Amino acid sequence: MKKLINKVDDVLNESLSGFAAAHADLVSLSLEPKFVTRAGGKPKGKVALVSGGGSGHEPLHAGFVGKGMLDAACPGEIFTSPTPDQILAAAQALVPEAGVLFIVKNYSGDVMNFEMAGEMMAGDHATVLTNDDVAVEDSLYTQGRRGVAATILVEKIVGAAAEQGAGLAACKALGIRVNAASGTMGVALTSCTVPAAGKPSFDLPDNEMEMGVGIHGEPGRRRVKTMDANAIAGEMIEAIAASIGPKSGDDVILLVNGMGGTPAMELYLVYEAARRLCEQRGLNVARSLVGNYCTSLDMAGCSITLTRCDPEMLNLYDAPVHTAALRW
Amino acid sequence: MKKLINKVDDVLNESLSGFAAAHADLVSLSLEPKFVTRAGGKPKGKVALVSGGGSGHEPLHAGFVGKGMLDAACPGEIFTSPTPDQILAAAQALVPEAGVLFIVKNYSGDVMNFEMAGEMMAGDHATVLTNDDVAVEDSLYTQGRRGVAATILVEKIVGAAAEQGAGLAACKALGIRVNAASGTMGVALTSCTVPAAGKPSFDLPDNEMEMGVGIHGEPGRRRVKTMDANAIAGEMIEAIAASIGPKSGDDVILLVNGMGGTPAMELYLVYEAARRLCEQRGLNVARSLVGNYCTSLDMAGCSITLTRCDPEMLNLYDAPVHTAALRW
Repeated sequence: MKKLINKVDDVLNESLSGFAAAHADLVSLSLEPKFVTRAGGKPKGKVALVSGGGSGHEPLHAGFVGKGMLDAACPGEIFTSPTPDQILAAAQALVPEAGVLFIVKNYSGDVMNFEMAGEMMAGDHATVLTNDDVAVEDSLYTQGRRGVAATILVEKIVGAAAEQGAGLAACKALGIRVNAASGTMGVALTSCTVPAAGKPSFDLPDNEMEMGVGIHGEPGRRRVKTMDANAIAGEMIEAIAASIGPKSGDDVILLVNGMGGTPAMELYLVYEAARRLCEQRGLNVARSLVGNYCTSLDMAGCSITLTRCDPEMLNLYDAPVHTAALRW
Repeated sequence: MKKLINKVDDVLNESLSGFAAAHADLVSLSLEPKFVTRAGGKPKGKVALVSGGGSGHEPLHAGFVGKGMLDAACPGEIFTSPTPDQILAAAQALVPEAGVLFIVKNYSGDVMNFEMAGEMMAGDHATVLTNDDVAVEDSLYTQGRRGVAATILVEKIVGAAAEQGAGLAACKALGIRVNAASGTMGVALTSCTVPAAGKPSFDLPDNEMEMGVGIHGEPGRRRVKTMDANAIAGEMIEAIAASIGPKSGDDVILLVNGMGGTPAMELYLVYEAARRLCEQRGLNVARSLVGNYCTSLDMAGCSITLTRCDPEMLNLYDAPVHTAALRW
């Protein structure tokens, strides 16, 4: 294992401390228990958005804490759900006046722990589950589809609505709508390596790739010989379209997301392939996002997400955001 | 070689086309010859900043075209200098009223080709050479020190001055000042792989790393057994400090830059180590930047840059910027 780390046990604390110090104008960090909140203090009179999940997917979720997106993020250990106390502490630190919306990727541990935190907390709360990964039904760590990169679009769009004063029920309904309008599929060219394991999570020969891979290296649809970018994008867009059924003329957000070990040059090339395929289907790529947003440690590969958007969703997507990983 | 590409010969055109389409609000792309300009058209009454160099270092330089930074970028083939005509065409497209400042990383081919373009063009022009890499004197592709990640800080700070109306001579003097106040050192955990070569540029055993590596995989100071992040940051900060001689109490910008294949979790961990080392030296880390800015294709590794700043430089660093890769 080759990584820029010190002791394996210190990776998360040291990385979070660096993140919080580099973005001290944006976020505050608690280490015991671990959560990240906005530096500006408690949200006043707005729904508080709280997300979280296992670490190793950076910038997800702490990189999206800030004005226009999340109020808090709870990073679990690497590829491990955050604990109920951790989530509860984050929610309590916000002293939410208008309720808490949990945005949770659909993994059994995450779902259970956010649910337990909700039961322990006082005050209104609701949950949006994301399950945008169209690759497989049921998987290593979850029943039903996995929540992956579209979680960022849910956090962005609902974050803007909350900032503009939408109530808890409206935020929840909007989150469900964005998730339902979204589909994602990923591909791995290499495995990721969990520091504590010290070796790749799965074996992938030099001439093969995992199509439909999960963000923890879970198996996808099929192990295939490596394909070119056009063929990869073609299979992904086909699978996503089969799930979300976009119609000619629809506005879509196209997100090409790096898994952590793939450089921008390749991501933009995949974006170009995906954009052409969208245009061939008559889709209007109304907004684009290309970069490392929902990663899988050092895995080489990418995912493609499409979200069908109505004008309200696009307006909320365009609303100002000021976080470490997204800013406009 | 595992990459998200189609034909090797099409990598650059397809990637640039994707970049330009994803950021159509910010940039315009010419493919014959290749250059990227601001979407808003020609700079009016300001010094035009033009940079460029071999591709494979994305987002450098096209990702820094936009308000507050560059007016144009000229991407050469992968790890290959842009041609004089390409640079000339970019400069002419700008119809510069207040002169052109070329910002050039110190590689012999780049220096020569920018010089030739300057000789061919009408109108005032000047050049700032960056040579911030403290690892080695002379190298595979250049005489004297290499220009690496501090080029971004030169582009940002001089870009702000140009936007505020500084003249050509003042922009040049400022660029020289930022470069002289900056030092960078890099480390490679893995080699990069040039698509046309199809295999790693150099061999690096599983338990070794290249300390002081160049951004094309050029040899550094020494090949050593892998070290932990604290030791790596320690050696780098030591080498940088020996070059730029910061004094206790100095304000510095600390840039931890990923080489393309290293995830954010590790970069923030290295940042944390570097920040502590700066504080131990009494340096005030006034601004921080952590991410993939000056990459080396898919190389795993990072570089650390320190720039000693006076208040004018910090003010210019803080000035608004609106590019694909930097925005505030």
